[in-house]
Amino acid sequence: MRTNDSDRGRTTGQLRDFARTRDLFEIPRGIVYFDGNSLGPLPRDAVEKVRRVMVDQWGHELVLAWNTAGWFAQPRRVGDRIARLIGAESGSVTMGDTLSIKVYQALASAIEMNPQRRVILSDVGNFPSDLYMAQGLISSLNQGHQLKLVTPERVEESIDTDVAILMLTEVDYRTGRRHDMARLTAKAHARGALVIWDLAHSVGAFPVDLASAGADFAVGCTYKFLNGGPGAPAFIYVAPRHAERARPALSGWMGHDKPFAFTKHYVAASGVERMRVGTPPVLALAALEASLDIWDQVDLDALRDRSIELGDLLIALVEGCCSQLRLVSPRVACERGSQVSFAFDRGYAAMQALIARGVIGDFRAPDIMRFGICPLYNGEEDIRKAAAAIDEVINGCVFSRPEYQVENAVT
Amino acid sequence: MRTNDSDRGRTTGQLRDFARTRDLFEIPRGIVYFDGNSLGPLPRDAVEKVRRVMVDQWGHELVLAWNTAGWFAQPRRVGDRIARLIGAESGSVTMGDTLSIKVYQALASAIEMNPQRRVILSDVGNFPSDLYMAQGLISSLNQGHQLKLVTPERVEESIDTDVAILMLTEVDYRTGRRHDMARLTAKAHARGALVIWDLAHSVGAFPVDLASAGADFAVGCTYKFLNGGPGAPAFIYVAPRHAERARPALSGWMGHDKPFAFTKHYVAASGVERMRVGTPPVLALAALEASLDIWDQVDLDALRDRSIELGDLLIALVEGCCSQLRLVSPRVACERGSQVSFAFDRGYAAMQALIARGVIGDFRAPDIMRFGICPLYNGEEDIRKAAAAIDEVINGCVFSRPEYQVENAVT
Repeated sequence: MRTNDSDRGRTTGQLRDFARTRDLFEIPRGIVYFDGNSLGPLPRDAVEKVRRVMVDQWGHELVLAWNTAGWFAQPRRVGDRIARLIGAESGSVTMGDTLSIKVYQALASAIEMNPQRRVILSDVGNFPSDLYMAQGLISSLNQGHQLKLVTPERVEESIDTDVAILMLTEVDYRTGRRHDMARLTAKAHARGALVIWDLAHSVGAFPVDLASAGADFAVGCTYKFLNGGPGAPAFIYVAPRHAERARPALSGWMGHDKPFAFTKHYVAASGVERMRVGTPPVLALAALEASLDIWDQVDLDALRDRSIELGDLLIALVEGCCSQLRLVSPRVACERGSQVSFAFDRGYAAMQALIARGVIGDFRAPDIMRFGICPLYNGEEDIRKAAAAIDEVINGCVFSRPEYQVENAVT
Repeated sequence: MRTNDSDRGRTTGQLRDFARTRDLFEIPRGIVYFDGNSLGPLPRDAVEKVRRVMVDQWGHELVLAWNTAGWFAQPRRVGDRIARLIGAESGSVTMGDTLSIKVYQALASAIEMNPQRRVILSDVGNFPSDLYMAQGLISSLNQGHQLKLVTPERVEESIDTDVAILMLTEVDYRTGRRHDMARLTAKAHARGALVIWDLAHSVGAFPVDLASAGADFAVGCTYKFLNGGPGAPAFIYVAPRHAERARPALSGWMGHDKPFAFTKHYVAASGVERMRVGTPPVLALAALEASLDIWDQVDLDALRDRSIELGDLLIALVEGCCSQLRLVSPRVACERGSQVSFAFDRGYAAMQALIARGVIGDFRAPDIMRFGICPLYNGEEDIRKAAAAIDEVINGCVFSRPEYQVENAVT
């Protein structure tokens, strides 16, 4: 699944040793952070980067900064930096909005590109918002489309010639189970379906290779492993072979061929630019750019190797002390993303007790304790601390204490 | 059009004298800024506010800040502060995405609420992106809807019983011409149409009274007069009488009744919360909150009075020296927003020459020179400086110099 050096998807980079990269992030002393698959930590340089954009550009250049500071080109510029991380062709990724909006855009375009069929196939491990956006679109269209959900294991056998679109999140947000992108994409294409990949838990977790897999569309967020900040902008990829014919359903002025001609009729811009909608979120993109200053250097193969070592170690240590926890992530490393999840019926309370001990993971209903691993700031010491805390909380029945019996909070 | 004190739309405030409010903004020495109707200037406190959210919340609280720092409730909290400025009921406004997306949401919901009709009526003075979004939605729906465009003057007479939705921007982005919201809304309702108001050039320009006008939906951006920053999040208003039945087309998880139950089927949240889509843009909302710290204090009636004085003065001074410029904004103050526009066939070059002299307005094709006025940072001295610079540029034929004969730039 790895890409060779080329103009796209170069996985190599000078940053192969992650022993000191933790210092690039603001993580409070004593905290072991395993929730970068929900919200990545603050890159230290992002504070100054955003301040400079606010003061030097917005403050001093005012509206002129749209040109002088290159704000209009920012979504494409940032998109090209994301492209390397996901094996996408240069110029095939743009930024903006949220992941849910990008799912809608990809799906709305794809549906029109396969007009004879009515089935959108997904799985029950997809992130709910992706399913909700599909449901909303189907209801709006009122053309008899159907969202068919199967278990992740049955996706491959369910790809038949009724399927218009295969819409999947590559890595399951709860279990970390990873789909085989290349294999499923090939099967979908063989059956005449288009494929949309949600890379929310893939980008920054391991090398992705969209182009080699032949993906039609892909979308993702940047606030998880990419550390772009809370509510950081999303990205969308359109395969270059589709980019001139994919009709943008959300046809905003920034995706117009000539936005500043202010004509009354929409004409789609060339390529992925047409997937831009409104005014780009400049400050949020600036924070993300600071994080990409790190990511630009990262050797994705080395990162993946280290992630697997750390994940395997966590599994071994936890299974060695806590039989009460059941591994729900794939044991085989290549079949999972960069997280390890355990099921435990008192998981919410147990996670609260871990957080009180400075080990921050999270909980997903009904019973899943998640530990996201990012080698940029997680090392072996973190894994050992987490395992020790899990041992204490589970075997000491700490989770039974009254202070942890609170109602599930929103995260 | 003004609202009395009540739980909604209180236009009064302690800030009635704007002599020293310019110091609340970062505007470079020597610059006269008349482009707050494109991008408002940086509120000085926004830099520290964003820094604190980045360091103290994102940095120190990490993912826990979603609860501890109240990030989940931020769109509604900010929406309630916008509500006062637009005469909206408390709890009827939420934040997120871009204005184009919000237009799409309002229109998609409204179309389903008036299913027997097919005409969406708008005018050629509407902002192009609003028209583009309607065109995109109509194309997706493929149900025979028609976007009918008339001149602004003919909107009222064109509201007939074929019209499903009247979709207007209250203030014309080029001329500043202001529609009569209450009158047009009443006529539309009398003919069985729903109304969507785009308040991009209204909010922060004068008191708006959505509730008294009986508007059905409204949308707006916050980077113009509200000074929320480049690409700041948009808002959407849904009249409380519609809020439980408006189906959200963009049905993302943040608009779900129970986002963290992670169920597979979308159930719309109660009220305007259903118009939330994806993860809220926390950093961008933080910058906006700093600006709203000022806006919370502003007496909107006093602001409007001052805006009219300054606009009338600019018109008088420019007309007194430059007959070459033709006023295209309404001469009667109550019929215009907070901008003054002149047509001039060499307008682009003339505006470049003004900008070179530190007077920043902007240009809109084909020949419009715009001057947006915000009494929070524009005073009489600004108006006199601008008029003197216009005199020099126009009567000295400065615009003919080679350095101003560049191609129109993107803004």
